[in-house]
Amino acid sequence: MKIIVDCMSGDNAPEEIVRGALEGKQKENVELLLVGNEAAIREVASKYNFSLDGCTIVENTGENITMEDDATSVVKEKNESSMAVALKLLKDGQGDGMVSAGNTGALLTGATLILRRIKGVRRPALGAVLPFGTPTLLADAGAQAVCAPEDLVMFARMGSMYMNKVMGVENPKVALINNGAEECKGTDLQKETYQALKNIPEINFAGNIEGREIFDGEYDVLIADGFTGNIVLKTCEGAGKFVKKCLSDVFYRNFSSKIAYLFAKGSVNQLRKDTSYDSHGGAPFLGIAKPVIKGHGSSNHISIAACVGQAKRYAESGMIEYIASLKTSSTEEKDA
Amino acid sequence: MKIIVDCMSGDNAPEEIVRGALEGKQKENVELLLVGNEAAIREVASKYNFSLDGCTIVENTGENITMEDDATSVVKEKNESSMAVALKLLKDGQGDGMVSAGNTGALLTGATLILRRIKGVRRPALGAVLPFGTPTLLADAGAQAVCAPEDLVMFARMGSMYMNKVMGVENPKVALINNGAEECKGTDLQKETYQALKNIPEINFAGNIEGREIFDGEYDVLIADGFTGNIVLKTCEGAGKFVKKCLSDVFYRNFSSKIAYLFAKGSVNQLRKDTSYDSHGGAPFLGIAKPVIKGHGSSNHISIAACVGQAKRYAESGMIEYIASLKTSSTEEKDA
Repeated sequence: MKIIVDCMSGDNAPEEIVRGALEGKQKENVELLLVGNEAAIREVASKYNFSLDGCTIVENTGENITMEDDATSVVKEKNESSMAVALKLLKDGQGDGMVSAGNTGALLTGATLILRRIKGVRRPALGAVLPFGTPTLLADAGAQAVCAPEDLVMFARMGSMYMNKVMGVENPKVALINNGAEECKGTDLQKETYQALKNIPEINFAGNIEGREIFDGEYDVLIADGFTGNIVLKTCEGAGKFVKKCLSDVFYRNFSSKIAYLFAKGSVNQLRKDTSYDSHGGAPFLGIAKPVIKGHGSSNHISIAACVGQAKRYAESGMIEYIASLKTSSTEEKDA
Repeated sequence: MKIIVDCMSGDNAPEEIVRGALEGKQKENVELLLVGNEAAIREVASKYNFSLDGCTIVENTGENITMEDDATSVVKEKNESSMAVALKLLKDGQGDGMVSAGNTGALLTGATLILRRIKGVRRPALGAVLPFGTPTLLADAGAQAVCAPEDLVMFARMGSMYMNKVMGVENPKVALINNGAEECKGTDLQKETYQALKNIPEINFAGNIEGREIFDGEYDVLIADGFTGNIVLKTCEGAGKFVKKCLSDVFYRNFSSKIAYLFAKGSVNQLRKDTSYDSHGGAPFLGIAKPVIKGHGSSNHISIAACVGQAKRYAESGMIEYIASLKTSSTEEKDA
């Protein structure tokens, strides 16, 4: 099992990416294909006392993609970036899965154009993991602003399978994000999706959920079009930041509250850990023909190590092959 | 100035509603028209030592509307409920504005069918107030699941005017909720709305905002279709509940953290107050031809008193008359 890592993308690249990849390698017992500046990669390995046994380094020649770059740059002016080279190596079968913490739009565009979609999948989805209670997969978290009911049904299928085969959740509970609990709620998209989902026996469909239930962590897969999903994802991120701000406000308000912090410190740190995105790894691109895991832009080494494990389990799961064998989507488009 | 209060709707009716209305009367110097069970109303007044001077009580004869009732019940089998009677009294000019903490769907349906829309407004919006930083008005928070760009533009106009004239915000900053900051982001709805909003000089349009910026409280009016707005509103409510849960987790985790609470108590209570929906009152129905303020279902007396003040300032603002004089909507429908 070999995982390809884009070492030059993300806010903390290359140091945290390379460090995390090497930690992941040790923990997950995989080989690595590290794409990026060889000297920088070797420097990080030596700084953290990691051997590079079982690692291949591929140095890319072009400029790397930044968070500000246009999504199409990965196949145009920056097609020799670490991200583009990593995608091409994955396409060529040089590795079994890939991790990148780079520009989401570019990675999705690159994955769609270079790796292609799974046969029968009309639209790929970004499956973000929300860290409230047990991990919850939100699909689509922003890949497709406009979706049809059959896309949402496919997201439910793929999300359910991912949580089962990659995250080890038995019979994952799937819910549709809507503006009310009742069957009749939502726009035509939600109404039609609801009717379709309740008739698919292999999906454990629990019905509609409203925004306030997201934090309860009672569901394993949340389904939405990419516009709604992106709003939900970012509102949850904002809420997370808000919780941190509230805690710091509570403890830094006055002398008495500062003393309180001395007693509560351990407890606060535990909460930070419980609600951190780090240990849950990254977001899978569901519907792409090879396993790609997108780490958060601000990923640290802990998060990247978790992404390596996710990519490994995604590749091992056989899920992509299974989805390809389904081809049940009524609106299947022919892949050229 | 006379405010009509639906005393029998809401989780805490009639006690908290009547108590809050009477507090609001005192604070805002208004008269009240209290709709509901006369004996119950008199009992609450006497329990809290309020005089009923300046109050008229209208006893409704029919069954009251519950949170589970169908939205159309207000004009059908429950057209003699406290809510329906209050709406009809407002329609007949027996009061200047109205407050209800009842079933949102029923109140909106009743308001639309009994009070009608303002001429030139195609779709009314629910304008919820978010309590992060300075109060922010979210419109539409759930009245219309499907909207056109001209609806969103009207929400921006009305929301902006409401924050200025009712909430006293100078030159309110308006933002469009979207899946990215750039002009080109979103579905056709957001793209077209963006282009329209940036060309209206009387709207202080600050561009798109993403979900994570909602908690910063930097904007005065947030615009969205009712589906998206409802998801945002309820995700924010969920986040608020989550903050409370996190705080209680932090302090109840172990012995040391329980001691911490003794020192942090005052500070925690201040945070609870700052992020409470109570003191900000309720949600205006923007685009309805008379001022209706919807209190949260779980409103207590503090919240209802604030709603009475809001209804008064909404009625005084002359905003409804001004919107009617505009009739700028290109898709204006004729009110029969």
